[in-house]
Amino acid sequence: MARKKMILDLDTGIDDALAIAYALASEEVDLIGITSTYGNVITTAAGQNSLKILELLGRTDIPVYLGLSHSSTTDQFAVMQVSKDIHGVNGIGEVNLPQPQRTVEATAAVDFIIASARQYGDDLIIVPTGPMTNLAAALAQAPELTALVGNVTFMGGALTVPGNVTEVGEANINQDPAAADQVLRSQLSLTMVGLDVTLRTLLTKQETQLWRDLGTKSSIAFADIVDYYIDAYAALNPQLHGCALHDPLAVGVALDPSLVQTIGLNMKVETDAPFAARTVGDVERLNVPTTNVQVAVNVDVPTYLKRFMHRLTALFAQH
Amino acid sequence: MARKKMILDLDTGIDDALAIAYALASEEVDLIGITSTYGNVITTAAGQNSLKILELLGRTDIPVYLGLSHSSTTDQFAVMQVSKDIHGVNGIGEVNLPQPQRTVEATAAVDFIIASARQYGDDLIIVPTGPMTNLAAALAQAPELTALVGNVTFMGGALTVPGNVTEVGEANINQDPAAADQVLRSQLSLTMVGLDVTLRTLLTKQETQLWRDLGTKSSIAFADIVDYYIDAYAALNPQLHGCALHDPLAVGVALDPSLVQTIGLNMKVETDAPFAARTVGDVERLNVPTTNVQVAVNVDVPTYLKRFMHRLTALFAQH
Repeated sequence: MARKKMILDLDTGIDDALAIAYALASEEVDLIGITSTYGNVITTAAGQNSLKILELLGRTDIPVYLGLSHSSTTDQFAVMQVSKDIHGVNGIGEVNLPQPQRTVEATAAVDFIIASARQYGDDLIIVPTGPMTNLAAALAQAPELTALVGNVTFMGGALTVPGNVTEVGEANINQDPAAADQVLRSQLSLTMVGLDVTLRTLLTKQETQLWRDLGTKSSIAFADIVDYYIDAYAALNPQLHGCALHDPLAVGVALDPSLVQTIGLNMKVETDAPFAARTVGDVERLNVPTTNVQVAVNVDVPTYLKRFMHRLTALFAQH
Repeated sequence: MARKKMILDLDTGIDDALAIAYALASEEVDLIGITSTYGNVITTAAGQNSLKILELLGRTDIPVYLGLSHSSTTDQFAVMQVSKDIHGVNGIGEVNLPQPQRTVEATAAVDFIIASARQYGDDLIIVPTGPMTNLAAALAQAPELTALVGNVTFMGGALTVPGNVTEVGEANINQDPAAADQVLRSQLSLTMVGLDVTLRTLLTKQETQLWRDLGTKSSIAFADIVDYYIDAYAALNPQLHGCALHDPLAVGVALDPSLVQTIGLNMKVETDAPFAARTVGDVERLNVPTTNVQVAVNVDVPTYLKRFMHRLTALFAQH
């Protein structure tokens, strides 16, 4: 079996930055590129943040591509106040990382996704941790992708728990329910890592202190960035007693599906208020014997957290 | 281990009638009583229908008790039009069974539930297939029931699929969301058999024809009753190509949990519109290590249907 290739599709974002670190720290996969989307910040800012994190971690070999700047059903995007509260206005906890030496690639994110699918096929894993807009656009432009791409493991949605922006809507899906509906109804092999599991994998300042104690540039920067996120969670979700490792859990599950208990389900996304953005089983296809979505409904928290800390701490120690 | 005892709490109802038949046909359990609730019909009619079905199946030894006549938050109940469409105005597909020789017991359903829990404790299984009103009232009156009763396997709710009366609300839970919330938040050992699985176990006229061919009184009556239900499903849910075995699946799972894949979840029921009656994970208790609800999310359809037909056909052949 060829070595797995990964594309991260990120609205970087604090937990997106952790997803980058987790992917770089995982020797079993090659991160071949990061595509940018809107959400926690605007798309161009997400691209800049990804470049900054890659430079911080010494990986200026990994290209960053700009994706679409707004949802498939709107003509512009504005960052929600709650996103600024959680990630900071700059998206990375108001920590000032150096301006990146590099720039984003000239190729568009959607074109990079399509070309990579054609090149790597079944060896390619795509991990979207923001809205599904780029991926839906790639599918619309190249429908054969559904049969080519090995797996898409996305952070988004909520099946067994309420949403985090509405009673039924999770933030990523809520940005572009129509795009998410196209992706979930497609024949792509999908794994959903939603709030069902990401609200169970929590990080606290006990862990970031371990990074801070390492005393490297990246370990201190990540401790500062993530402490901002932990403080935001303490204010907004005090009952959790930590910050949710949404996006890095998606990377972890993409590399090792055994971390989660999943159920197979043919899904749809509601697009009309007040139920918009709900990710739910499609009764029309409930009795179709094959299912294209594996939904994570439980997670081996101790194993994941141990692996997360082991990998990221080893990476931060080097930079 | 003592032989298991079962109480069915029914708004009889066509699939409730099938639940009675399934319980009577199951040699591993004693059906010690049927309590009546409102829903498909009014409570008194549910009691009469249960008496009729018991007489049809030769089991006049099993007592029937009247439960509460309306929800915990209303002062009256009217049968919904959709219930009349699915079950007929008389609740059993407009089939005219003889007036029962017996009457309901003088003891109230709630008192019978409490007394049975005290008598049988861990050996008692309660199977509510209508609103949770009787059970919530029993818990309010005798909170120690949560520790006494072996298991409550209820038909109701929808976790991974939309509801059937609203986008999020299933019919039984929707009758009394507040009562269901009290039950789900209690420490009872609960198994939820909701639309997630009951919309997968479907019966068609191929199967009822087998009963009709038996030529007994009960087999013909049940074929007529269930054909009414199959016709209603064909009109209202043509995509299913059959009628859902909601209530008898709950009995089947209560007796053999291995029929379903379950996930453990601490749950709540939304009580406010437009999300009222949604059965969903409670984020406040998401990371509590113990869970009191096992939610059925998938079912071994061939095994269940084979067992269902085997048991009911054998029973109908005798009466």
